[in-house]
Amino acid sequence: MNIQTLYSTSAPLHTPLAKHSDITWRMHATQDVKYNVSIVNGLLNPENSSLANACGKYNNNNDKTKRLVVIDSMVFDLYGDKLKIYFGSWNFDISWKILSGDEINKNMESAIEVTKSMADAGLLRRGEVVVGIGGGVLLDVVGFASSLYRRGVPYIRIPTTLMGQIDAGIGIKTGVNHGDHKNRLGSYFAPSSALIDTSFLGSLNQRHISNGVAEIIKMALIKDRALFELLDSISSHLTPGAFASDDLTIREIMSRAIAGMLAELEPNLWEAELARCVDYGHTFSPSLELLATPTLLHGEAVAVDMALCVALAKGRALLTDEEADRAIALIGKSGLPITHPIFEQDLLEKALADTVKHRDGLQRIPLTNGIGAATFVNDLTSGELTKALDFIAERQHLREQATVL
Amino acid sequence: MNIQTLYSTSAPLHTPLAKHSDITWRMHATQDVKYNVSIVNGLLNPENSSLANACGKYNNNNDKTKRLVVIDSMVFDLYGDKLKIYFGSWNFDISWKILSGDEINKNMESAIEVTKSMADAGLLRRGEVVVGIGGGVLLDVVGFASSLYRRGVPYIRIPTTLMGQIDAGIGIKTGVNHGDHKNRLGSYFAPSSALIDTSFLGSLNQRHISNGVAEIIKMALIKDRALFELLDSISSHLTPGAFASDDLTIREIMSRAIAGMLAELEPNLWEAELARCVDYGHTFSPSLELLATPTLLHGEAVAVDMALCVALAKGRALLTDEEADRAIALIGKSGLPITHPIFEQDLLEKALADTVKHRDGLQRIPLTNGIGAATFVNDLTSGELTKALDFIAERQHLREQATVL
Ligand SMILES: NC(=O)c1ccc[n+]([C@@H]2O[C@H](COP(=O)([O-])OP(=O)(O)OC[C@H]3O[C@@H](n4cnc5c(N)ncnc54)[C@H](O)[C@@H]3O)[C@@H](O)[C@H]2O)c1
Ligand SMILES: NC(=O)c1ccc[n+]([C@@H]2O[C@H](COP(=O)([O-])OP(=O)(O)OC[C@H]3O[C@@H](n4cnc5c(N)ncnc54)[C@H](O)[C@@H]3O)[C@@H](O)[C@H]2O)c1
Ligand SMILES: [Zn+2]
Ligand SMILES: [Zn+2]
Repeated sequence: MNIQTLYSTSAPLHTPLAKHSDITWRMHATQDVKYNVSIVNGLLNPENSSLANACGKYNNNNDKTKRLVVIDSMVFDLYGDKLKIYFGSWNFDISWKILSGDEINKNMESAIEVTKSMADAGLLRRGEVVVGIGGGVLLDVVGFASSLYRRGVPYIRIPTTLMGQIDAGIGIKTGVNHGDHKNRLGSYFAPSSALIDTSFLGSLNQRHISNGVAEIIKMALIKDRALFELLDSISSHLTPGAFASDDLTIREIMSRAIAGMLAELEPNLWEAELARCVDYGHTFSPSLELLATPTLLHGEAVAVDMALCVALAKGRALLTDEEADRAIALIGKSGLPITHPIFEQDLLEKALADTVKHRDGLQRIPLTNGIGAATFVNDLTSGELTKALDFIAERQHLREQATVL
Repeated sequence: MNIQTLYSTSAPLHTPLAKHSDITWRMHATQDVKYNVSIVNGLLNPENSSLANACGKYNNNNDKTKRLVVIDSMVFDLYGDKLKIYFGSWNFDISWKILSGDEINKNMESAIEVTKSMADAGLLRRGEVVVGIGGGVLLDVVGFASSLYRRGVPYIRIPTTLMGQIDAGIGIKTGVNHGDHKNRLGSYFAPSSALIDTSFLGSLNQRHISNGVAEIIKMALIKDRALFELLDSISSHLTPGAFASDDLTIREIMSRAIAGMLAELEPNLWEAELARCVDYGHTFSPSLELLATPTLLHGEAVAVDMALCVALAKGRALLTDEEADRAIALIGKSGLPITHPIFEQDLLEKALADTVKHRDGLQRIPLTNGIGAATFVNDLTSGELTKALDFIAERQHLREQATVL
């Protein structure tokens, strides 16, 4: 037994009355977390064993194996038949739980509903992996429910949106919105694996592609200049069809984005360190995302925040004028906004105050330090915000003029 | 970066079409969990710094420090004044959240209510430890809420029941009941510390003392023969007053029970191993606890289960007749039941089937292997249950006759 019994400092070590001593036991344990993230070609091809293996099945000649699949309703409409054929050919007996994957359903009630289907399926505690298939919303809810049920049952993530494949679907964060706050309740709970097949992206609309591209631009700006150049070189071809294709540049973009994200996550999986460069574009955007009408997608709010942060970096000479122009241009060319009517001084200051609470009392704002590198600032002033807003307003004005001409 | 890029086995390593290869990234990280469990004499004495320190305060001459205290309503009635004096003298500014600590309130709604007081208190993410004070119910709810809010805020546990001080309050399990199941939703979430002051136990009633004693008997039976002898030597004096006193035997019992529990928990904090000797008495009791009317306390249901397990062990010659008699006698002398009208063959078989699900398909029943040691069985039969029930019924009959005489 490696528990040490100590006498605490408040009790003198040579006290004559042993019975009055305080006693302290120090508990210390480490939890090992391992999971694989894979890009799999032809995931739903019955000849491909990856998905069956991830579900714990290595051949299809034994008894029916029951599994619970929790799936986004849109994805079920589009890929349900293929999934049924796949699971059928591997001799699975699937309980389907179909959930609407919209942000408005990302709440405690949906998570509880998923735990109810776990109970209905008579789920064992460890032996029957739950399969989540859908966008970031669906995966956040399934991951959360899996972490709660019996204090944790294993699950796998199959992200079907670009946002999911390069961000929401490959980490260990789960959560739901609560009481006007995004992701206010949640957990850290690693999947047993995440399987990515880009062919799902072919059925997304352009807006949801751009939404994911925003997070790829983020990775490029804060840690991967080569990724920035790749994006810039094909910024006019970032379409659903391109992402679902075998295009080599797109492949390179996907794997750099994923590898970059995983490299940031791995040493800080439980966010012990609150200064995270992947929070670039996520300082002011949560409030914008919450308040904008008509609704902004997450990546769109992030884009507006990133444009501001580019201006802030330029103001501190952390980007040259040319770099700032290129960065803002890339955001725009990707079909993303750089401004928003309510994204003004007042909102920014309130948003920052909220974020400071979430970052435990310090600003910890990631800014670009040249394109492809990051630094953190804790001393941002109102004056800098005003100047940055002015700069972006001017860029936006130029953009609008260019469209008119 | 220690992420390895691998080519999965399903893609041949020398494939001519690089773009068609699958790619796998292996994620691997370890989480270090550390916390202290302390027996503190005079925890609420303003001269004792332990509680203030655990709340992050090392002197009382600086600004007001705000903290959220979530407390059992009964404990607040009994100790609220002392707590106010203590926190006042250390210059804390306390928000009190008072919750009824009854089992019936151990649900998702209560946990959500606690997260609401966290939001109302404007809690930071890491800097402001939440303080939970009460029995196992209160601590399970506070721990659960703390694990959910912002995916985890720090908290400390101050158990005020015997059950809390030797079991519920010193591990990392949290949870609430859900849909007819005990602790169906929950998490593993370590406190930053647990502080134990036995003087709280003076205001418990005898029934709740016996309730906690059941779990101490469990520790004695499965891993600590000396603890069994200590309990046996003072079995008629296990009163609230004795537990709140400086009695050396009680002190020894408390520290052996705590040390034994922590030693079992530490190497298996996340229950990777489902065969746990601390689950002794917890195989059939969950169903009994759920169905008994009038309500049984957790420890009472555990006692009935333990008596049966003693009989089962005797049936397999894992206890001598004399050991079995002593064990059953100790349970009885401690004011605990050894039988229950609904604890019959039918219920036992259903209960076992449920538990097998929770233990992932195997029985993994801990039984005593002599007093003070444990073994696990996976092949218990209906016949053995029948015989054990008969044996216990006979003991109960003798007990009743002895009372009548
Ligand atoms: N856990 C994390 O680390 C993390 C990281 C980033 C974002 N997120 C969360 O992810 C969510 C956003 O994820 P999202 O952008 O994927 O949104 P989403 O899950 O709402 O999906 C967007 C829409 O696309 C549909 N859809 C999904 N797959 C499709 C497909 N293959 N073809 C056609 N339609 C499809 C969905 O039904 C939905 O209507 C947010 O709630 C955000 O908070 C979480
Ligand atoms: N998390 C774990 O590892 C773990 C382990 C064992 C049990 N538990 C849980 O603990 C719960 C049982 O805990 P419990 O037995 O402490 O019950 P409890 O929390 O309901 O407390 C019992 C009663 O005692 C009152 N009380 C508390 N402290 C008091 C004091 N000092 N003086 C007078 N009255 C006081 C409470 O108001 C309550 O009415 C169960 O829900 C069980 O599932 C959890
Ligand atoms: Zn994001
Ligand atoms: Zn117990």
